Amino acid sequence: MNNNVKILDCTIRDGGLVNNWDFSIKFVQDLYNGLSEAGVDYMEIGYKNSAKLLKATEPNPWRFLDDHFLKEIIPKKKYTKLSALVDIGRVDPNDILPREQSVLDMIRVACYVREVDKGLELVQMFHDLGYETTLNIMALSSVPEHQLIKAFEMVQESPVDVVYIVDSFGSLDPADIEHQVKKFQAMLPNKQLGIHTHNNMQLAFANTLAAIQNGVTFLDSSVYGMGRAAGNCNTELLVSYLQKPTYEIKPVLGIIEKHMLEMRQKWEWGYIIPYMISGLLNEHPRVAMAYRESNDRDKFVDFYDKVTSPEASNPSALK
Amino acid sequence: MNNNVKILDCTIRDGGLVNNWDFSIKFVQDLYNGLSEAGVDYMEIGYKNSAKLLKATEPNPWRFLDDHFLKEIIPKKKYTKLSALVDIGRVDPNDILPREQSVLDMIRVACYVREVDKGLELVQMFHDLGYETTLNIMALSSVPEHQLIKAFEMVQESPVDVVYIVDSFGSLDPADIEHQVKKFQAMLPNKQLGIHTHNNMQLAFANTLAAIQNGVTFLDSSVYGMGRAAGNCNTELLVSYLQKPTYEIKPVLGIIEKHMLEMRQKWEWGYIIPYMISGLLNEHPRVAMAYRESNDRDKFVDFYDKVTSPEASNPSALK
Repeated sequence: MNNNVKILDCTIRDGGLVNNWDFSIKFVQDLYNGLSEAGVDYMEIGYKNSAKLLKATEPNPWRFLDDHFLKEIIPKKKYTKLSALVDIGRVDPNDILPREQSVLDMIRVACYVREVDKGLELVQMFHDLGYETTLNIMALSSVPEHQLIKAFEMVQESPVDVVYIVDSFGSLDPADIEHQVKKFQAMLPNKQLGIHTHNNMQLAFANTLAAIQNGVTFLDSSVYGMGRAAGNCNTELLVSYLQKPTYEIKPVLGIIEKHMLEMRQKWEWGYIIPYMISGLLNEHPRVAMAYRESNDRDKFVDFYDKVTSPEASNPSALK
Repeated sequence: MNNNVKILDCTIRDGGLVNNWDFSIKFVQDLYNGLSEAGVDYMEIGYKNSAKLLKATEPNPWRFLDDHFLKEIIPKKKYTKLSALVDIGRVDPNDILPREQSVLDMIRVACYVREVDKGLELVQMFHDLGYETTLNIMALSSVPEHQLIKAFEMVQESPVDVVYIVDSFGSLDPADIEHQVKKFQAMLPNKQLGIHTHNNMQLAFANTLAAIQNGVTFLDSSVYGMGRAAGNCNTELLVSYLQKPTYEIKPVLGIIEKHMLEMRQKWEWGYIIPYMISGLLNEHPRVAMAYRESNDRDKFVDFYDKVTSPEASNPSALK
């Protein structure tokens, strides 16, 4: 096992896609302290998108991170570094302070492969401001090879520190991960690689292990798996399984016991049949998420028929 | 993917360890019909142990299978074959009819490696009565190499059809499975291999995939993962993921929708932190199961401290 691996916990950021970031300050603080005690390397504390650009009418501190607010709630940094995610076209460069004035250490840029040029422009800006940077290429399972090769050529020239393989739909298996990692390594020999998995088919942890075995060093996870739809690789599995002496499981168990069981009662994520089906079909979970909000939420056969019918490409057929 | 793979659903047998086999006849019939429609190859309908030898005071039809009863509830066999499991020292040879008088097609013998000689005696008897047979070697993660080699020498001489690798404690990962399968193949080149996994660390499906990739052909699973403690590899994942044209996911979704959601409300199995911890520590889940029955069921840090303390080998410390 590679001792250079780093865990990046994205409970707040990806978990916020489950509960519209309805996290108390106390929870975020407990999570930060627990992850620090557990030796988790990074905590992604939310999105640093612009409320103005998204025309948001409600405040949402973890979706629209503000440096002054962050400094108030985390007045003293501990072991764990802080990261934020931004989306192409949703971030206002004026919102980003130089790193020495921010509590953030890393800014990650999520993009589809067709927008890699725009993603790398943002990476360059954040890099110049002093941040560690990553480029998270989403929906990889649907990307044609030639698009990827073109994107890699641009990435090679960029100062980005880490390039992430993102299994957005939870549709990859360990053999697919091995294949993707080898391709990324061959095309980007000078970059560290990261992995972000979803648990639609109960493969998030196994896919992360396959990534590590093939040389990936940045591992996304979330406590008790909290993340959109089927959720992510579980932080408690990584800290307990990886043979790195600085990782401790007990602080993560403490967070689960104190907060996550109750949160799981209130909000839904994890291995749930419609998400399994969307993973299987290599599709975005949004249709399954909408179905889970409907009165038909547990009609799995009906859901399967709808998403595999010839009309399935027409989203209104699913309402 | 190997088209010779066979799925053996053990929802009733292993799931019965969760609810003391409190399954209605209607459910077992629905399950049998659904698995047949789904193209699942075998259904393990319970244990064929002896109520007398176990001094049982209550009737328990799925724990003490009776051929006449089975014929009544499954008067007409469909696609799926039926199997039963027996334990060493708990089966009465007088209870076993010749195969042509039974609805059972296969009898499986569970044993620890130290009892392989006794297990193979039973296998020989069932084989002579006309049944397909398997030998399921339990708790493999704790078996010293030299014991295994001695056991393999005996197995080679036996008429047993399939030898199972059983990850009883849910403590193996895909790399471990690959290692075990290669060892079994080298020592038992003339035997088919099977795999029975547990989901303590969310690796049951991934471990089953690793087994298939290395040539294992008999795959144990259960619908919605229902099995002791963390449960098993999910039947719905196997039938949907394996590229075998006879497998159909919809009948399995139908069983989940009609029965399993309600059963999961009533009984507990799956990814639950104390079971994750027992898997991690390569220990039998019985201590974790007892803890889940206590008032302290959600005190995960306390549980972890107890099972990792120097007194943990004294079970009374856990009460």
